Amino acid sequence: MAGVLMKLDLTPGQASVAVTGVSAALWVILNKVNNAKLKALKMDQTVVCISDKASGRESKVAVDRKFFANLISLYKVCCPGVLSKEFALTLSVAGSLVARTWLDILSIDNHTRIESAIVAMDQELFKKHMSLFILLTPLLAVTNNVLKYSLNSLQLAFRVRLTKYLYNIYLEKLVYYKMGNLDGRIANVDQLLTQDVEKFSDTITELYSNISKPILDIAIYATKLTKVLGAHTPLAMIGYMLISGGFLTRLRKPVSKMTVDEQKLEGEYRFVNSRLITHSEEIAFYEGSSFEKRTIEKIFRKLVNHLKSMILFRFNMGFIDNIIAKYLATLVGFYIVSRPFLAETSRFRQQSHSSRLEDYYKSGRMLLKMAEAMGRVALAGRELTRLAGLTSRVNELIEVLEDLKKDQFVRQQVVSGPSKKEESSESKIVNGQTQDFKELTLASFGLTLQSRGRIIVANGLIKFDSVPLIAPNGSVLIESLDFEIAHGQNVLVRGSNGCGKSSLFRVLGGLWPVFAGTVMKPARKNLFYIPQKPYMTLGTFRDQLIYPDTTEDMRRKKIRDADLETIIEQANLTKVLKTHGWEKVAEWIDVLSGGEKQRMAMARLFYHCPQWAILDECSSQISVDTECQLYDICRQKNITLITVSHRDTLWAHHEKCLKFTDNKQVLLLDVVDGKEPLF
Amino acid sequence: MAGVLMKLDLTPGQASVAVTGVSAALWVILNKVNNAKLKALKMDQTVVCISDKASGRESKVAVDRKFFANLISLYKVCCPGVLSKEFALTLSVAGSLVARTWLDILSIDNHTRIESAIVAMDQELFKKHMSLFILLTPLLAVTNNVLKYSLNSLQLAFRVRLTKYLYNIYLEKLVYYKMGNLDGRIANVDQLLTQDVEKFSDTITELYSNISKPILDIAIYATKLTKVLGAHTPLAMIGYMLISGGFLTRLRKPVSKMTVDEQKLEGEYRFVNSRLITHSEEIAFYEGSSFEKRTIEKIFRKLVNHLKSMILFRFNMGFIDNIIAKYLATLVGFYIVSRPFLAETSRFRQQSHSSRLEDYYKSGRMLLKMAEAMGRVALAGRELTRLAGLTSRVNELIEVLEDLKKDQFVRQQVVSGPSKKEESSESKIVNGQTQDFKELTLASFGLTLQSRGRIIVANGLIKFDSVPLIAPNGSVLIESLDFEIAHGQNVLVRGSNGCGKSSLFRVLGGLWPVFAGTVMKPARKNLFYIPQKPYMTLGTFRDQLIYPDTTEDMRRKKIRDADLETIIEQANLTKVLKTHGWEKVAEWIDVLSGGEKQRMAMARLFYHCPQWAILDECSSQISVDTECQLYDICRQKNITLITVSHRDTLWAHHEKCLKFTDNKQVLLLDVVDGKEPLF
Repeated sequence: MAGVLMKLDLTPGQASVAVTGVSAALWVILNKVNNAKLKALKMDQTVVCISDKASGRESKVAVDRKFFANLISLYKVCCPGVLSKEFALTLSVAGSLVARTWLDILSIDNHTRIESAIVAMDQELFKKHMSLFILLTPLLAVTNNVLKYSLNSLQLAFRVRLTKYLYNIYLEKLVYYKMGNLDGRIANVDQLLTQDVEKFSDTITELYSNISKPILDIAIYATKLTKVLGAHTPLAMIGYMLISGGFLTRLRKPVSKMTVDEQKLEGEYRFVNSRLITHSEEIAFYEGSSFEKRTIEKIFRKLVNHLKSMILFRFNMGFIDNIIAKYLATLVGFYIVSRPFLAETSRFRQQSHSSRLEDYYKSGRMLLKMAEAMGRVALAGRELTRLAGLTSRVNELIEVLEDLKKDQFVRQQVVSGPSKKEESSESKIVNGQTQDFKELTLASFGLTLQSRGRIIVANGLIKFDSVPLIAPNGSVLIESLDFEIAHGQNVLVRGSNGCGKSSLFRVLGGLWPVFAGTVMKPARKNLFYIPQKPYMTLGTFRDQLIYPDTTEDMRRKKIRDADLETIIEQANLTKVLKTHGWEKVAEWIDVLSGGEKQRMAMARLFYHCPQWAILDECSSQISVDTECQLYDICRQKNITLITVSHRDTLWAHHEKCLKFTDNKQVLLLDVVDGKEPLF
Repeated sequence: MAGVLMKLDLTPGQASVAVTGVSAALWVILNKVNNAKLKALKMDQTVVCISDKASGRESKVAVDRKFFANLISLYKVCCPGVLSKEFALTLSVAGSLVARTWLDILSIDNHTRIESAIVAMDQELFKKHMSLFILLTPLLAVTNNVLKYSLNSLQLAFRVRLTKYLYNIYLEKLVYYKMGNLDGRIANVDQLLTQDVEKFSDTITELYSNISKPILDIAIYATKLTKVLGAHTPLAMIGYMLISGGFLTRLRKPVSKMTVDEQKLEGEYRFVNSRLITHSEEIAFYEGSSFEKRTIEKIFRKLVNHLKSMILFRFNMGFIDNIIAKYLATLVGFYIVSRPFLAETSRFRQQSHSSRLEDYYKSGRMLLKMAEAMGRVALAGRELTRLAGLTSRVNELIEVLEDLKKDQFVRQQVVSGPSKKEESSESKIVNGQTQDFKELTLASFGLTLQSRGRIIVANGLIKFDSVPLIAPNGSVLIESLDFEIAHGQNVLVRGSNGCGKSSLFRVLGGLWPVFAGTVMKPARKNLFYIPQKPYMTLGTFRDQLIYPDTTEDMRRKKIRDADLETIIEQANLTKVLKTHGWEKVAEWIDVLSGGEKQRMAMARLFYHCPQWAILDECSSQISVDTECQLYDICRQKNITLITVSHRDTLWAHHEKCLKFTDNKQVLLLDVVDGKEPLF
């Protein structure tokens, strides 16, 4: 088009007006079409519910005072003092940056000299400057790589510090358990601990180099340019950049909101996908796939429409952005550089063509470098928002971890809302009388989720006195537990699914807080728990048996492999041991069969040999005969058992029965003649 | 350093030798130190077991024939024909790319003219070329933005096509269920469906533009340069690039292996983190956090050591890379460009200084642009490996989906290995006799995981004839099921946890294949299933009740909201309905309480009113009285129930008992007088 116009032999002025007009008209038309499309996209109001889990909390992340305060406190974790390796690396980065700027300037200077030697066809001068070029090369290579090395090492060092700091809180005092089971604030702690910590370390170090280097560059080039062309040239350039930058920032403003919306919609889309996987069995039973497909398609369509409107918006804005930030900037650059040369009273008039050339090219290159540096500062500004997001996330994690360490939980409660208060349709039987009752919630107790109950360490006794069983979501499973078990009396616990059996053990194990009443229980080391899901740790076969002891703990207890072999034999695992050997490392959860895993858990009990043990349906895949032998061994070792099981063959091994009735009551009954007691 | 040397007044030759020597020595020393460190890092042989889940399959991904075959088949999905929108967008991208290259050349030419006008201090010429610049500006802006718009739209269009294609298979015939529950090949299908599909679309379109644009550039600039400087200049440049590129590729080779290892270690690290969360309750009960902390720290240390060795390797290699790819390339560039100018017989000797200048700068700029284009091709080559990885992943997903559609499963079996064969330590009681038996596995049946059983649709009858219950991992829960239930006989199912109750329903519901024997059951629409975990869909309150029907289905069945209200009242949910209303959209799993969700599931049963219903412990949080009322309503509606429950109050509502004994047998007993039958 430009070519055709040039052949029409218009004056440049006419041509430029014509093409600018045509392009502008083209843009306006495209813009109109796009706006119409945008409106059409917004019409599609298919509202699908967004779960809070999917969208996440939208706490406002901004580059503000709070951000810098958070950043400083995190930096103190990452770089504990001026004598740390991290501080040395920080200095090394700064040193390399200064060295590189200095070498860059030398290189530009030398480049220009080489080029003018070529144009002047001066063989000698060419050789001389080429030699200097060869001389600078290895220095530049070393500087660049020292910089990279220092930056990468700094990133890694920060990551290691932060990770260790977080793990020290996370793996202390059951915080890892409380995080997922009692607190509702952070859903993806593994992602925060691994990816977000890494991203934070990367972003902060990159930003450190990406901000300090261009600011250094701008200062140096502005000084140099002032010397060659006078102060007004760099000042005018900086002025233009600031004004256009401000204008473009305003123009780009909707983008950040659009990006937030995009993230939200992508999150929602991912959420419905993983939701389908979580509930795949239920949906398969209901044959609900076509219903779910409609939902997923609706949400995907919403996302696609949003992405389309973003593409259109970018197109509309990109045109102005391009013209102002790229072409007009070059135009202004040319104009500014040309002023000193084209002025009537220019001092350049006295110089030779080649000397003017050198001055022009040096200043041109520097101006270019300065503009580039300014662009990098602008980009770094955008990165700063990203860092703010990461900082707030890591900081929130630390806050939650500290809260959990202090047993302070925040969780959406089932309570609240009029719906619950109105619901009084269910009834329960208390002592044979039918009474109306509400689904009991924590609110009835006037409690916040902080434990007010007492825990007393007692020997040879487990006693619950007016202790309510309250789930983390606030719903009350049992209003008041009152029973007492003495050492030596095996207890079989019975009740329907979801009646609160496991919850009782969670309270006993210290996993759930005691909200009211008094719990008397033996010291933690005297009470061993075998959970329903058999757990195998990552490690050797021996580690499985002695878990959670380490090999060092075992040695300290003066237990030898020969002793372990006896235990393995008791648990009927000798053949498994022979197959694998003590030292084999594997993911034992996958390697062992269901029955083997359950017998290993019993072997673990024999190894630790505590006063008390809680067996939560942990022998369902062991044959009745073997199970009977294992219970006999427990009796020999004087381990008092609290068992949950539906097997009737186990009555013979128990003296008491703790019965969770269908009416939310708990009764302690005597077992007579190894038969289920009636009540 | 260079400055100091210059002041020493050495000849450039001496100086360059000196500095090169010093730098090389510096590099050699650092290299030695690093190699020693590398060795030390590798000494740390703390082997921790890597789970297959963590490391993923390491199928070799390479840019080879298979990759291109896969890519073409995926491209056919993304762009179904020459009349599709996708093809039009592809053409639009190509057109914009050609236009931009043409405008770029015009711009370079014009830039050079502007600059020579400045140096020549020619005001008129400056104005003329500046006008042309202004004229080109809007054209460039429009071209750039049309290119970006086309690329972004193409990305989105590909993503939409691929997503829809995948969902059509994924949400068909229970494939989504089989994926996670019966097949072991793909663990993270949600990530593949959302992120990987997006990444694939992005990478393929970007690569299309990133490869075609620089190749176009190289061709055009090589032609232009040949005109100005002769053919040997661009040829020499291309030659140097090819040789050095080949050398650097060899040098960089270890990087790809190191990156794979890094991914693996990062995966392992993430795996132990999420493993901790998955098993947090078991670990909390065992108080195993300090053991787990040691494991996590070990794996983190392994990762950090690997990252350290990568940083060191990059430092060592970066030096050579920098010198060859950047500085030597510039050196060669200068040398090549200078030859025609500095030659004794140069045609440039006849030209004026400013005309030589123009020729030099034009050719210099073009050479620069050509070198840049070559760099971009090299980078695109690296991107190609990334695309190969994504292509193989998406392709594998499609293969697995197609397999699952055909009921072909691949899964790690519990079978195999001598450990199982030796294990004969458990015993079972058959007809009162004690026999030794192995833990039964699929291998005992000589079956592969393909269903060989028969399913017959029968009316008013559920009958199992010699049907084994086999879990997806190949372990046999029940050797042979033989029983028959007639319509009208409510059956209560009893048995310990993990005995196979839910598995029986999975076979009945068609979720698990029938491996042998014959199953007679009513048509799917006559059999309704309420799973243990209450499921609520994303949608309105009404959607919860009529799920999996849609509102349209409901209208078609001529059911009105008034009818629904009756059902809601029967299920004791009237007050919940009054609170929320029919049209409220929410994540009902979180909004409703446990009892409300279970009553909603019963209401759903009343809405669909099938001949048969399976209730899998779905009323444990409903009070005994209300439960009794709900069972009465089922009887009124002539729904025959198969119930799993431990509540003794339910005997009164059932005629038969299906008893899973502790010895892996299943008996069908009569319930007399609403009391548990003895056996």
